[in-house]
Amino acid sequence: SAATLISYYGVAHGCTRKLGMKICGFLQKNNNVEDKSRIVRFFNEQQPRSILTRDNERDPRFRRTETDFSNLYARDLLPAKNGEEYTMQFLLEVVDILTNYVRKTFDRSTKVLDFHHPHQLLEGMEGFNLELCDQPESLEQILVDCRDTLKYGVRTGHPRFFNQLSSGLDIIGLAGEWLTSTANTNMFTYEIAPVFVLMEQLTLKKMREIIGWPNGEGDGIFSPGGAISNMYSVMVARYKHYPEVKIKGMAAAPRLVLFTSEHSHYSIKKASAVLGFGTENLILLRTDERGRVIPADLEAKVIDAKQKGFVPVFVNATAGSTVYGAFDPINEIADICEKYNMWLHVDGAWGGGLLMSRKHRHKLNGIERANSVTWNPHKMMGVPLQCSAILVREKGLLQGCNSMCAGYLFQPDKQYDVTYDTGDKAIQCGRHVDIFKFWLMWKSKVCVHIHEIRTSAFDNVLLMNESNAEHKNHPQHTNVCFWYIPPNLRLLPDGEEKRQRLHRVAPKIKAMMMECGTTMVGYQPQGDKVNFFRMVVSNPAVTRSDIDFLIDEIERLGQDL
Amino acid sequence: SAATLISYYGVAHGCTRKLGMKICGFLQKNNNVEDKSRIVRFFNEQQPRSILTRDNERDPRFRRTETDFSNLYARDLLPAKNGEEYTMQFLLEVVDILTNYVRKTFDRSTKVLDFHHPHQLLEGMEGFNLELCDQPESLEQILVDCRDTLKYGVRTGHPRFFNQLSSGLDIIGLAGEWLTSTANTNMFTYEIAPVFVLMEQLTLKKMREIIGWPNGEGDGIFSPGGAISNMYSVMVARYKHYPEVKIKGMAAAPRLVLFTSEHSHYSIKKASAVLGFGTENLILLRTDERGRVIPADLEAKVIDAKQKGFVPVFVNATAGSTVYGAFDPINEIADICEKYNMWLHVDGAWGGGLLMSRKHRHKLNGIERANSVTWNPHKMMGVPLQCSAILVREKGLLQGCNSMCAGYLFQPDKQYDVTYDTGDKAIQCGRHVDIFKFWLMWKSKVCVHIHEIRTSAFDNVLLMNESNAEHKNHPQHTNVCFWYIPPNLRLLPDGEEKRQRLHRVAPKIKAMMMECGTTMVGYQPQGDKVNFFRMVVSNPAVTRSDIDFLIDEIERLGQDL
Repeated sequence: SAATLISYYGVAHGCTRKLGMKICGFLQKNNNVEDKSRIVRFFNEQQPRSILTRDNERDPRFRRTETDFSNLYARDLLPAKNGEEYTMQFLLEVVDILTNYVRKTFDRSTKVLDFHHPHQLLEGMEGFNLELCDQPESLEQILVDCRDTLKYGVRTGHPRFFNQLSSGLDIIGLAGEWLTSTANTNMFTYEIAPVFVLMEQLTLKKMREIIGWPNGEGDGIFSPGGAISNMYSVMVARYKHYPEVKIKGMAAAPRLVLFTSEHSHYSIKKASAVLGFGTENLILLRTDERGRVIPADLEAKVIDAKQKGFVPVFVNATAGSTVYGAFDPINEIADICEKYNMWLHVDGAWGGGLLMSRKHRHKLNGIERANSVTWNPHKMMGVPLQCSAILVREKGLLQGCNSMCAGYLFQPDKQYDVTYDTGDKAIQCGRHVDIFKFWLMWKSKVCVHIHEIRTSAFDNVLLMNESNAEHKNHPQHTNVCFWYIPPNLRLLPDGEEKRQRLHRVAPKIKAMMMECGTTMVGYQPQGDKVNFFRMVVSNPAVTRSDIDFLIDEIERLGQDL
Repeated sequence: SAATLISYYGVAHGCTRKLGMKICGFLQKNNNVEDKSRIVRFFNEQQPRSILTRDNERDPRFRRTETDFSNLYARDLLPAKNGEEYTMQFLLEVVDILTNYVRKTFDRSTKVLDFHHPHQLLEGMEGFNLELCDQPESLEQILVDCRDTLKYGVRTGHPRFFNQLSSGLDIIGLAGEWLTSTANTNMFTYEIAPVFVLMEQLTLKKMREIIGWPNGEGDGIFSPGGAISNMYSVMVARYKHYPEVKIKGMAAAPRLVLFTSEHSHYSIKKASAVLGFGTENLILLRTDERGRVIPADLEAKVIDAKQKGFVPVFVNATAGSTVYGAFDPINEIADICEKYNMWLHVDGAWGGGLLMSRKHRHKLNGIERANSVTWNPHKMMGVPLQCSAILVREKGLLQGCNSMCAGYLFQPDKQYDVTYDTGDKAIQCGRHVDIFKFWLMWKSKVCVHIHEIRTSAFDNVLLMNESNAEHKNHPQHTNVCFWYIPPNLRLLPDGEEKRQRLHRVAPKIKAMMMECGTTMVGYQPQGDKVNFFRMVVSNPAVTRSDIDFLIDEIERLGQDL
């Protein structure tokens, strides 16, 4: 077996290094065939016997009364008179569907997804019609819709889902989200979210302590995702340097320029467009072979911009880049920011979680010198989507930048300390409660969680790495980037034809992989590199054998290309 | 009993009209005292007998095995080996806490909130400590934390919660949110959210049909709240008129001005600051006595701006203002927008739900002429937080305005039709699944839901209105704005002293109301009007007697002021 997996773990090595088959040692073809037939058998057994599948395996304790939902409708539930009993039965039936899904998510004999093309789902699957109807459906059909929605979705918590930086299904976090939905409140005021507002403040303070800001002082807010958190950083930087822009608009400032790595997340570019800087005023920085910003390139470009009469105002350093998992050298970038009076933002959406690891936090050395930090607990820390924080070192800027003092929400004459009404710091008005699940996870385990991830993710990646004798670079994060070169391509001489054919390999394998539904991994081109796979490990449920499974699937699907 | 409630239902009548006590006819003081002692008794009975309350009333079918969670930790749950049983037991225990909360939410003998000041909660309540610990808590403590988080929160679904535009606890929506949390995926690609992406597209199309755009053509996206939806409208308007701003920044455009009502939501002002227009380039329009924009004022201000050399580019018309519930005259505003080539946005965050009502949709006449519409199903339609849509008449603008074509997400060489990868339209990268709960509610009842609201909300408001013989104006929406004038103030002559004292009445009553926890209603000043109450009815659980209860509470608490 001579499959060639070319790996560069976030390192631009070209197509020269071989990973060898050692890493696939645990997987034999026969096992795989067995797996496959087990999956087919499993799915056949899952065919509903009635419109609402009654699962024979179900633990009898979980049985609810056999309520007939076919003649019940939403109008029969609370607040309807006598709706309580039906409401409880209905919710328990939903929970039954959900807990079955949770069980299957962790079960490797289930598929990661059951792929259908958009037109197939739109045409309607048996008993499952996405179209909005004109007549209310019965609760029985609503339950079927719930079951089918999960059936045709993607199990992002499955141990063989490597497709995104966010993966896994944390049980405590899940419980937290269920509670959050039930509380159904809004973060804008202490008045209607007293407990959640305080949890947010305490958690943000803890995060700032971990960043290393003295006494955890500073400010911050949870926002709907890392892109918005990064946008906050640019807004606050602008407000710090040109507060008059809030009132007078960008016309009040000179031509401002921003800097970020060519490997940084595209949200920095989005922010430059949204906020009125313009994408051409975002200057991309060159990176080394491992995807890290070259500080000298930053300084050269700052000097160049100043010579053109532009004003350098903001630098983004990435801690854990999206594709390579690269960590920019924060301290060297901070030196340049201080020298030229620029705001330093650290986008630690992906890598921020390593701050909680004694072994790995050195990768973010210098983060305490940042003016702002993005940190998404919904990525490496496994918190359910969404949970993203923007943290700001200087207090008052978020409020100054965004406050509009709406009289109907932020009354100054309330009976409690209104500094706890944090809503006016946000660009949102209503804000979803993203804090509770994170707070609850922290309470339950956060001190050990990163350790778990380290052993299951980093150690796996390290093992994979060590099995490649030629490869001595340690990975920076749990991203693993590699090409699979099918046998037919191996004999081709290097050159444009090989490049073009290699470029088509990953999309073809991914397409087959999704049809099979056995595993999922992402791919992309980057710079002058043709399409390559990016495997990411962030789910604590992933074991060495799951990674082996992925590699074997790639080989199985790609060997005849 | 001659309590004077001065009402203006969104109408600036001054302090002349009396509502009379007829509307309080169903409430006697004695009932109220009984209510109060029943509540006290109830809460006393709720004192935990052990750290985890075992509720005697609990239906025996809901009993789970008596798992001892005191020696179990998060690490014992899935993906731990043999973690499945503990996981199921833990989740069922959580569900038990949640379903009890749901029951109590609809139970008028429970309080709306159990108020504590920030310092009290921060100091820690018995058994409930918000501080993040260094050691993992047992699952028993985690369950206690869940229960206490709900205990010290606000029951926004309680029939006596009138504090916010979003209220109620819809059971189908709740089930939808629980499922969404369990699916834990992300809206950016069809790849990992096939079903949800299609549900979003179908639902947005239906909403556009209801707006009245031909064949439901156009574009849209669900965003994290109405403020962000409104921000999208300004961004897209800018892109339509000055697409070069995306690349070159605001410097590429002349001085642009925006128009909105002085009664409009503050998010329009936030957007003008965030996007680099500057708040001074947002021009506020005068309103009539019912809070509706005066179109002649718009045209005069447009002409004035043009004479100064500014470029009018965007007009926001509000359909259902935040405080008064006012509807701007869309058709007349649309005429002016067409005449001067300005983008017309309709902020129907609050009033959009009336589009689904035959009786009330005339209030939004002309909305089909808008270029974009904000519509928050999480308000009048009772969908759990958050669920807000921005709808755009012209296809392609959202994509053109925001797309950055990130290679790692939006690969053009996928096997499916990548036009279903809608993530690049958004300013977010990851995007929470806000669609499912709404889709499920629509399936289950949406055709009748607004009718329910109309009978329970509008009819109540109309009844309240009709009982005021002097008041002939129909309310525009379910906002009811009024002063309570305590007996001591009634004898004072009109003038500054009376104004100042009246200004302090609502905050004082609200403070006492929150301490009592029996009901909640908002207040605010507006323009030259001193603090007044704004009662909002959007929860279908509200009955006439709940409104009476609120009025009576206000009188009870305020009579000695």
